[in-house]
Amino acid sequence: MSRWRKAQQLAASEGIDTLLITPGADLRYLTGYTALPLERLTCLVLPARGEPTLVVPALERAAAVASGVDIEIASWKEADDPFALVASLVGDVAMVGLDDHMWATRVFSLRDALPTAQQVLAGPLVQQLRIRKDDDEVAALRDAGLAIDRVHRRMGEWLRPGRTEREVGADIARAIIDEGHVTVDFVIVGSGPNGASPHHEVSDRVIEPGDPVVVDIGGTTALGYCSDSTRNYLAGGTVPSDYLDAYAVLEAAQQAQRDHARPGVTAESVDAVGRAIIDEAGFGELFIHRTGHGIGQETHEDPYIVKGNDLVLEEGMAFSIEPGIYTEGRFGARIEDIVVCTADGLEVLNNTPRGLVEL
Amino acid sequence: MSRWRKAQQLAASEGIDTLLITPGADLRYLTGYTALPLERLTCLVLPARGEPTLVVPALERAAAVASGVDIEIASWKEADDPFALVASLVGDVAMVGLDDHMWATRVFSLRDALPTAQQVLAGPLVQQLRIRKDDDEVAALRDAGLAIDRVHRRMGEWLRPGRTEREVGADIARAIIDEGHVTVDFVIVGSGPNGASPHHEVSDRVIEPGDPVVVDIGGTTALGYCSDSTRNYLAGGTVPSDYLDAYAVLEAAQQAQRDHARPGVTAESVDAVGRAIIDEAGFGELFIHRTGHGIGQETHEDPYIVKGNDLVLEEGMAFSIEPGIYTEGRFGARIEDIVVCTADGLEVLNNTPRGLVEL
Repeated sequence: MSRWRKAQQLAASEGIDTLLITPGADLRYLTGYTALPLERLTCLVLPARGEPTLVVPALERAAAVASGVDIEIASWKEADDPFALVASLVGDVAMVGLDDHMWATRVFSLRDALPTAQQVLAGPLVQQLRIRKDDDEVAALRDAGLAIDRVHRRMGEWLRPGRTEREVGADIARAIIDEGHVTVDFVIVGSGPNGASPHHEVSDRVIEPGDPVVVDIGGTTALGYCSDSTRNYLAGGTVPSDYLDAYAVLEAAQQAQRDHARPGVTAESVDAVGRAIIDEAGFGELFIHRTGHGIGQETHEDPYIVKGNDLVLEEGMAFSIEPGIYTEGRFGARIEDIVVCTADGLEVLNNTPRGLVEL
Repeated sequence: MSRWRKAQQLAASEGIDTLLITPGADLRYLTGYTALPLERLTCLVLPARGEPTLVVPALERAAAVASGVDIEIASWKEADDPFALVASLVGDVAMVGLDDHMWATRVFSLRDALPTAQQVLAGPLVQQLRIRKDDDEVAALRDAGLAIDRVHRRMGEWLRPGRTEREVGADIARAIIDEGHVTVDFVIVGSGPNGASPHHEVSDRVIEPGDPVVVDIGGTTALGYCSDSTRNYLAGGTVPSDYLDAYAVLEAAQQAQRDHARPGVTAESVDAVGRAIIDEAGFGELFIHRTGHGIGQETHEDPYIVKGNDLVLEEGMAFSIEPGIYTEGRFGARIEDIVVCTADGLEVLNNTPRGLVEL
């Protein structure tokens, strides 16, 4: 059964009359069509019962047809009102489910075009499907993992004292493309104290001997699936001894999380297993983020590996395991692998050395 | 005066109590902070009067500080409700202006957190500022134009009969980074009949001698400004004679539009000048899109060069001039330059040869 037919069944069971999905990961997942996020409206009109319609600007009709979508296409011309077209397809309904990432400007236009329909979010429904990857999706994530591993293995070509994070980051970005991605999604090169900011990107800071360097990188492959892996490097010199103490704890925690994660355990238990080890060693206050996020056609999606998420893991769920320890003003460390639940265990998709890599 | 202070003045004059701006081009423009589009809420709370606050996840605080924003930062921790925090900062107001691209999930959360505030769009207000580029922005667009021109000049390295559009596109993507961008925003290689789809990207079609090939490419530079230029290539063989007839008309139309555009004329008049030439030659039905779009920190922004837009062009407005002629099933052609209005004329930022380039 096609993905959009499964979404129809869920919509019917949840009392949502029509799903309205705009360009982004949910549209790509449901239809296979990678629409550009343009100012001109593209919108999948997916009723709980009956046939769907893909509304596209005339300019995009050929691209939509070429994508091979198995859905009727209705196109609108530059002078038409696309929201009136959507409203005519939706008809008189009580509840519409809007794409979670639909732009505010469209939310308001649809509210005006469908004034009696209650607007709710469609994302939770689509995520129920997206959260379990099928074999093709797991294969695509595996390829993405291999591609980013190849980039990490080449780090010694670029990461040297005397170069700036930005220079190193530009080289990494090129390699992300060269090694098998079509887009560079993020490049974090956090040297010395910059490693203590988990989402630091790059800066003009010159890397010095003795700096621990956090490198967290990812891209999207031609099949539309994302990679994301973090490793820690030292380019000459000696790291502080307390860094090594913290690093040993971090490695043990991340290993324990990989040993624990499998179908049948909760998302929050994976977080807890690692946090307990880090807490026990006295670094609990320095592990300032959740353990991980789901990954697929988006770098961050369900399931989130975080306290409070009692979701029970199932086969096909893919997510990051990435505990970190951050000492503000001095250094940080994070070890991140993408993993996917198999029928009875865990496949780890990133497999470069997890210890501090001396270049 | 800082950009966000100018936005406050506009908000006051338009009766919007508070602007709520989430990650994207408007946030970057107003504050200089390039926030990641994360599932964790980042939001600029900008009251029409009084001091603004940048709400960020604790995880992003260091990155926000490092960006050098001149705005107080309030951070929230993983267990906090960020919408309650925003609501407490907004207070009891009648009207809030939401970022045009704010996600539906946030629009709904803010509606619940601020139930008595009318939600309107903030975009039209911010666009009034963004539409006129200052000298630094024009310089950044000029650099982006030079970078993409360098890629076009190298097309002969990659575009050859026997290669697929996808292979050529991958090489172009690498060169977009190598020649001075940090992201690849789009790569269109439309060979033969695929050139007739204006937003075709790449396919596995093998390029053949005699195929006209439309190459429309762009990226974003380290300063956050976008490039976008289209040229037309022939790699061996002979194009159909009716293609050359259409191409000559297209060149004349695009030249006439560049000659016409300047401060004091309307956006729609630029469209009309080119369309008249194409209509006159009998190709009017094949010019299926508007003439152009504004460009800056986004590839598509105001002003749109389209019938019905009677905006009078002013110094600092930057946009594309890109008429096209598309014969479905056979071929297409488009010539695109980015231009910017000077005090009394037009600076053209793309300057590679505009004729059909024989490689």
